[in-house]
Amino acid sequence: MTTNTKVLFKSIPEGAANLANFEVVSEPFNIQTAAAALQPNSVLIKVTWLSVDPYMRGRMRKPEVASYSAAFTLGQPFMGHGVGIVVKSTSEKFAEGDVVLGILPWGNYVSVPEAAITRKINTADAPDLPHETYLGLLGMPSFTAYAGLVVLGKPKAGETLFVSAAAGAVGQVVGQIGKRFGLRVVGSCGTDEKVDHLVNRLGFDAAFNYNKHPIREKLAELCPNGIDIYFENVGGETLEAVLTLMNVHGRIPVCGMISQYDGAGYGVKNLFSVISKRITLQGFLVSDFYADHHDAFLKWMFEHGLDGTFFYEQTVANGIENVPAAFIGMMDGKNIGKQLIKL
Amino acid sequence: MTTNTKVLFKSIPEGAANLANFEVVSEPFNIQTAAAALQPNSVLIKVTWLSVDPYMRGRMRKPEVASYSAAFTLGQPFMGHGVGIVVKSTSEKFAEGDVVLGILPWGNYVSVPEAAITRKINTADAPDLPHETYLGLLGMPSFTAYAGLVVLGKPKAGETLFVSAAAGAVGQVVGQIGKRFGLRVVGSCGTDEKVDHLVNRLGFDAAFNYNKHPIREKLAELCPNGIDIYFENVGGETLEAVLTLMNVHGRIPVCGMISQYDGAGYGVKNLFSVISKRITLQGFLVSDFYADHHDAFLKWMFEHGLDGTFFYEQTVANGIENVPAAFIGMMDGKNIGKQLIKL
Repeated sequence: MTTNTKVLFKSIPEGAANLANFEVVSEPFNIQTAAAALQPNSVLIKVTWLSVDPYMRGRMRKPEVASYSAAFTLGQPFMGHGVGIVVKSTSEKFAEGDVVLGILPWGNYVSVPEAAITRKINTADAPDLPHETYLGLLGMPSFTAYAGLVVLGKPKAGETLFVSAAAGAVGQVVGQIGKRFGLRVVGSCGTDEKVDHLVNRLGFDAAFNYNKHPIREKLAELCPNGIDIYFENVGGETLEAVLTLMNVHGRIPVCGMISQYDGAGYGVKNLFSVISKRITLQGFLVSDFYADHHDAFLKWMFEHGLDGTFFYEQTVANGIENVPAAFIGMMDGKNIGKQLIKL
Repeated sequence: MTTNTKVLFKSIPEGAANLANFEVVSEPFNIQTAAAALQPNSVLIKVTWLSVDPYMRGRMRKPEVASYSAAFTLGQPFMGHGVGIVVKSTSEKFAEGDVVLGILPWGNYVSVPEAAITRKINTADAPDLPHETYLGLLGMPSFTAYAGLVVLGKPKAGETLFVSAAAGAVGQVVGQIGKRFGLRVVGSCGTDEKVDHLVNRLGFDAAFNYNKHPIREKLAELCPNGIDIYFENVGGETLEAVLTLMNVHGRIPVCGMISQYDGAGYGVKNLFSVISKRITLQGFLVSDFYADHHDAFLKWMFEHGLDGTFFYEQTVANGIENVPAAFIGMMDGKNIGKQLIKL
C-alpha cells in the first residue's frame, strides 16, 4: 500500500490565485486495485513530471463563463501537461513501462483514457534526453511558438519577424526559431533587462522596451524593410502600429492579446490594411496542432534545438504537494524560465 | 487604313469621376504597320468587349498615393478586363485568331505583352458561350466571389455564410455559389428592394436592410447557429457585430471594407475573438488567384453556373467612345447588373 496525493480545484480565485484555491489531499493507494479497476482503452500512470503554465489561471473560473479552454471542475484535480510511466494499460496503443506525455490530472497515480495521451516518448529519437525536456524546451509553449511561426507564419529566409511579449515563455522560443529560419528578428518587452536578454543571450537582431519608446516609431526604425510576420501576443495599440508597417502578403499568427484580456477592448482603426496588404490574421490554439504537426515540431527541434545553442531556462520544484506554491510563484513571476515540478 | 479610337486618362477626379477626366482620341491606324512594329513576345489584339468596374475609380489617382492597385498613368489609355481577337502574334503562347481574355488598354486595337493575357478562351470547354460571358458571369467579380468563398472560405455543407453588400456585383455571386455548396446564406444590403431581390430571385435564405435594423440583433436572429464564413465587404461596425457571432474555426475572407475607404477608421474593439474562436481573417485581391485557381473557377462555373439557374444581369453599351459615360453611369448606379461595352 502506498499513498496517492492529488491537488484539487477548491475555489475560484477573485483576482490572483492563492493557496486557498487549492486543496492537497492524500489517500492510501493500492496499485493492484487501481489496475484491476481500470476502464477499457485507458492507462494507469505513475506521474513523474508536471508543468504549470499561466493559461491554467484562465481555467480556474465558473464553467458558464465562456473562454477558449474548458473550466476546471470544482472538487476535481487540476490537469495539465505532464509526463509519467504507464503501470497498467487496457489500451492497444500503450504498454506497461512506456513513458508518455499527456494532459494529466495532478496526482501521483492517475487513470486516464488513451485520448489524454499526446504521445509515447521513450522512442529511439533521442534516447538520452531527460524526460522533463518534453515539458520544457520541447513543451507546450515551444510547440506554440513553432505552430504559430512555422506552420502559420510560413517564414522565408530574409524576411522580418516581429514578436511582442518577446521575453515570455513563447516569445523567447519564437525569436530563436526565427533566427534559425534566417529571419531578421525584432522583439518588444517591458524592461531594459529583458531587452538585454533578448539581444545578448537569445540573439535577437533588435529589441525595445515598449514602456520607454513610442511603438510605431521604434518599430519603423528597427524594421526598415517592413514586417513580414508579426507573432501577436498583445493586441491593441501594438497591433495597430504593426498594421501600418506590414508588408504585402504579411502573416499575423495571433497567439494572445494580453492587453485585451480585461475585455476593455482597444478599437483597432486600421484594419483596412488587411485588404490593401493582403494580410492573413489567424487566431490559433496549440491544442489544434498536435495531431498534424507535433511530430514535425519534435523532428525540427531534435535537429535544431538540442545542440546547446538554444537558450532555455527552467526551474524545478519537488513534490506534488508543492504544485500550488509553484503555480502561484510562477504567476507572480518568481520563477526563472519554465516552471516544472518533479514528483 | 482604319481608325483606332482610344480612351485616355486625362485628369484626376476630385470626388466622383466625370467626363472631363476622360479623353477620347481617334487616329488613322494601319494594321500591317502595327503588326510589323510588334515587340517580341507580344500580341496585337482587336478588342471586342470591355468591362468597366468600380475598382477602376481607385486607380484614377496620383501615383504617389498608396493603394493596392497601381494608379493609371495620365495621358495614357485606361486599362481593364477585356476580350479580343489576336490579329498578330510574336508570342509562342498565342496564335492569330485566338480569342483572349486579359487586362487590355481601352482601344480598338492594342499591342500588349503576352503577360497581359489571362487566357485563351476559344477552347472546346464551352464552344457556344458568348465571349462576353467571360467578362460577365465568368468575369472578375464572379472570380472574386469564388476565390474568397471557395478558396479561402473552405465551405462545408450545412454551414452558415453571411455576406455583406450582398446585392453588389461580388455579393450576388457569393450568395449563389454558397447555396450550391449547401450553405445557409444570409445577406445584408441597404434597401428593401435589394432584400426582396436577394431572397426571391437569388435564393438567399435570409437578408436584411441594415438601414432599418440593428446589425448585431438582426444577425443573431437570422444566424441561429452562428456564422462560419463571413464574406467581408464593408468592415467597421458590421465586422464587430459579426465577430460576436462567429463560430470556432470561422473564416473571414476580406474582399472589401467599403465603410472604411474614407480613412476615418472605425475602431474594432473585439478582435480578441480572433483567438478565442480561432478565426482566420484574410485580406485578398483576386489578381493573386488567377495563376492557381482560374481554371478551377471556370470548371466549377461550367458545371454549376451555366445551367440557367444562376441569376446574372448585364447591361451592354456600344462603341468605345461610350466607355466614359458607361463608367460614370455605373458609378452612379444607373446600370442594371454588370456593365459591359461592345466594340
